[in-house]
Amino acid sequence: MSLIVQKFGGSSVADAESIKRVAKRIVDTRRAGNEVVVAVSAMGDSTDELLDLAHQVTPLPAPRELDMLLTAGERISMALLAMAIKSLGYDARSFTGSQAGMITDARHGSARIVDVTPGRIRSALDEGAVAIVAGFQGFNRDTKDITTLGRGGSDTTAVALAAALGADICEIYTDVDGVFTADPRVVPRARKLERVTSEEMLELAAAGAKVLYIRAVEYARRHGVTLHVRSSFNNNTGTIVYNAVTAREKGEIVEEPIIAGIAADLSEAKVTVVGVPDIPGKAALIFKIVARTNANVDMIVQNVSAAATGLTDISFTLPKSEGERVLTALTNEKDLIGFASLQYDDQIAKLALVGGGMRTNTGVSAKLFEALYESGINIEMISTSEIRISVVTRADTINEALRVVHTAFGLDGEIEAVVHGGSGR
Amino acid sequence: MSLIVQKFGGSSVADAESIKRVAKRIVDTRRAGNEVVVAVSAMGDSTDELLDLAHQVTPLPAPRELDMLLTAGERISMALLAMAIKSLGYDARSFTGSQAGMITDARHGSARIVDVTPGRIRSALDEGAVAIVAGFQGFNRDTKDITTLGRGGSDTTAVALAAALGADICEIYTDVDGVFTADPRVVPRARKLERVTSEEMLELAAAGAKVLYIRAVEYARRHGVTLHVRSSFNNNTGTIVYNAVTAREKGEIVEEPIIAGIAADLSEAKVTVVGVPDIPGKAALIFKIVARTNANVDMIVQNVSAAATGLTDISFTLPKSEGERVLTALTNEKDLIGFASLQYDDQIAKLALVGGGMRTNTGVSAKLFEALYESGINIEMISTSEIRISVVTRADTINEALRVVHTAFGLDGEIEAVVHGGSGR
Repeated sequence: MSLIVQKFGGSSVADAESIKRVAKRIVDTRRAGNEVVVAVSAMGDSTDELLDLAHQVTPLPAPRELDMLLTAGERISMALLAMAIKSLGYDARSFTGSQAGMITDARHGSARIVDVTPGRIRSALDEGAVAIVAGFQGFNRDTKDITTLGRGGSDTTAVALAAALGADICEIYTDVDGVFTADPRVVPRARKLERVTSEEMLELAAAGAKVLYIRAVEYARRHGVTLHVRSSFNNNTGTIVYNAVTAREKGEIVEEPIIAGIAADLSEAKVTVVGVPDIPGKAALIFKIVARTNANVDMIVQNVSAAATGLTDISFTLPKSEGERVLTALTNEKDLIGFASLQYDDQIAKLALVGGGMRTNTGVSAKLFEALYESGINIEMISTSEIRISVVTRADTINEALRVVHTAFGLDGEIEAVVHGGSGR
Repeated sequence: MSLIVQKFGGSSVADAESIKRVAKRIVDTRRAGNEVVVAVSAMGDSTDELLDLAHQVTPLPAPRELDMLLTAGERISMALLAMAIKSLGYDARSFTGSQAGMITDARHGSARIVDVTPGRIRSALDEGAVAIVAGFQGFNRDTKDITTLGRGGSDTTAVALAAALGADICEIYTDVDGVFTADPRVVPRARKLERVTSEEMLELAAAGAKVLYIRAVEYARRHGVTLHVRSSFNNNTGTIVYNAVTAREKGEIVEEPIIAGIAADLSEAKVTVVGVPDIPGKAALIFKIVARTNANVDMIVQNVSAAATGLTDISFTLPKSEGERVLTALTNEKDLIGFASLQYDDQIAKLALVGGGMRTNTGVSAKLFEALYESGINIEMISTSEIRISVVTRADTINEALRVVHTAFGLDGEIEAVVHGGSGR
């Protein structure tokens, strides 16, 4: 008997029919002799509808009350799912985040899990029931108030429950078949990965792969939870996301491919601070000013100073949504920094090549640059980590870039991947 | 400074605009220097919509899960209401039934309040906040499960909070101006009552007046809570519902009118068991069989036995919705009871005349019977309590009966009552 945690997102429980279909799948797992805990999101777009309602009442809803409001969404889906399972003759009980022991800090809207005390879940399992837990929500012990975990919160709920209960596996049901070497909608010969390490998955998620949320993967990596990302529309095996360190400690053979996959990100823009005096402390000053705006700076490149002028250019990328406020902050301090001008470019794209095997393989960057060069694609910025190489190109060349790099690294599959409907998650 | 509990029903918080209007009214009460606790129902028809959803998933939803589902409704309205109040610059906090300390038994769907521990509500008030409490819902300490109070539950929540907090008054906001001497839609000269005793209100509610739920009135009577039934659409004073016994004990002068009001009920049917042997134990047998169906028998009349035949007829009234199952039960035991036939009549109406002053005034029934006789309205059954006389007539004569009795007892007002839109509650 295994203990399996299953997570179903909003599109999997969008209406009564979908809920009944998910209930059957859960019952199949239970009938096979497993203990089953389910984390479920709110139905379809219902969270957005509640947000709309809040904004009809006030442009700036109080965070405590917004959390109280939004948590109604999973309350509805989890109760309906529990009913559906019971009507199939299996015991099921729904639990709010608070009842399930998801203890968080008091940061409404983006609370962090500080403890998980799933006593009632364990009891429900011991009594033979399927436990249905509201995703996305928690409870702060000091204020005794309800909290929400923010974006991707239901994935995190599932992983945190799996860790606390010592689950054998945490299945994340989604509308794609698993994690692919690249987005199959752009790269038709992308292959589904059978296995990927959580380190690689983290890099892929950070680089724009939307199949899993960074936070949930990071929680899984830290607590040694093995994930199985799979489709809720079929019974195919998906992709296993596992902790390579833990696996090695257990004596399992971990053979990381040189390249696990490629991801693209079109959500960033590039800011260039032109004509900065090339003296110590200027870069620090710029990024102190940027940090005060809470911007999420990604790549940073400083050009070599032109000796004649004693001036240099500093470029960095950040989410497009943060561009305006960073430009304003820099402009306000123009005299202090002493730069000549600012450039803003939102027609860029980032391509990231990820693979644990890079650590022990040389020549990966050279091969990447060559493949792009041969297709006439210009590289504007480069940054690397231990298991990732990212390059910035023009946005209109990114799809071509993905395909040529995919081919160059021998990732192309024999047949074209089947692409399901839906716009990712 | 007074402590005021206010209850707003679903129609008062049906959309964002209504919620903002209710928020302004609450803020007005708070600004006047009062402590304010609000009990709120789910928005408009949202409880029915959740019920529909449950029935799309399964014809027989599990009661625990149905309560979990339905309590999402008030969670939404209370959070929105708290946001709206905060956006007006006043502090407000929403609380679920569980957080507000509404402790109930474990009877899902129709739980009874066993204790109220409003510690968090008291703290919120002490800190200057308005406390918004989800109506209709509670919490069972043993199972740690969420419960609902059933029909009229939000009224009961308001009254129970008022009792536990020692509130000065419990205001029940509705879509009519208060309690009237009769339904103004039928009796245009009906007058709004300034005051009515809780005993009278109980009899009126039991007799079909829809303005308040019996259970909430009974709770208020038992705990000495004074109610103020008033319109959420204007600032007029409504009707005070008070406990006459408590008032007398406090030395207040209680002058009960002979007649407080008249109510009509068209929801009942009459069953007649014809030709029952007039021997001891037959009535007991019949009502034992009826009781086994959980039917709510109201009036019972046994005709004098016709000496020649030794047979008698027994009639009783009950809600039309229970007619079929009672007839089936009686038919199944026809031989045991030994009756000749059953008659079922769903074209009846009940008129009830209620007034605390009846206790000390004779001639009330005579005047009632005379008024009906003079209008040619036939009386089919009669039953009385200490402060009520009820008669059954043909359904198609009930409106005329209400008007002539209203006039006969001098209840007519000078001007016609203003009738607001809406279908009662």
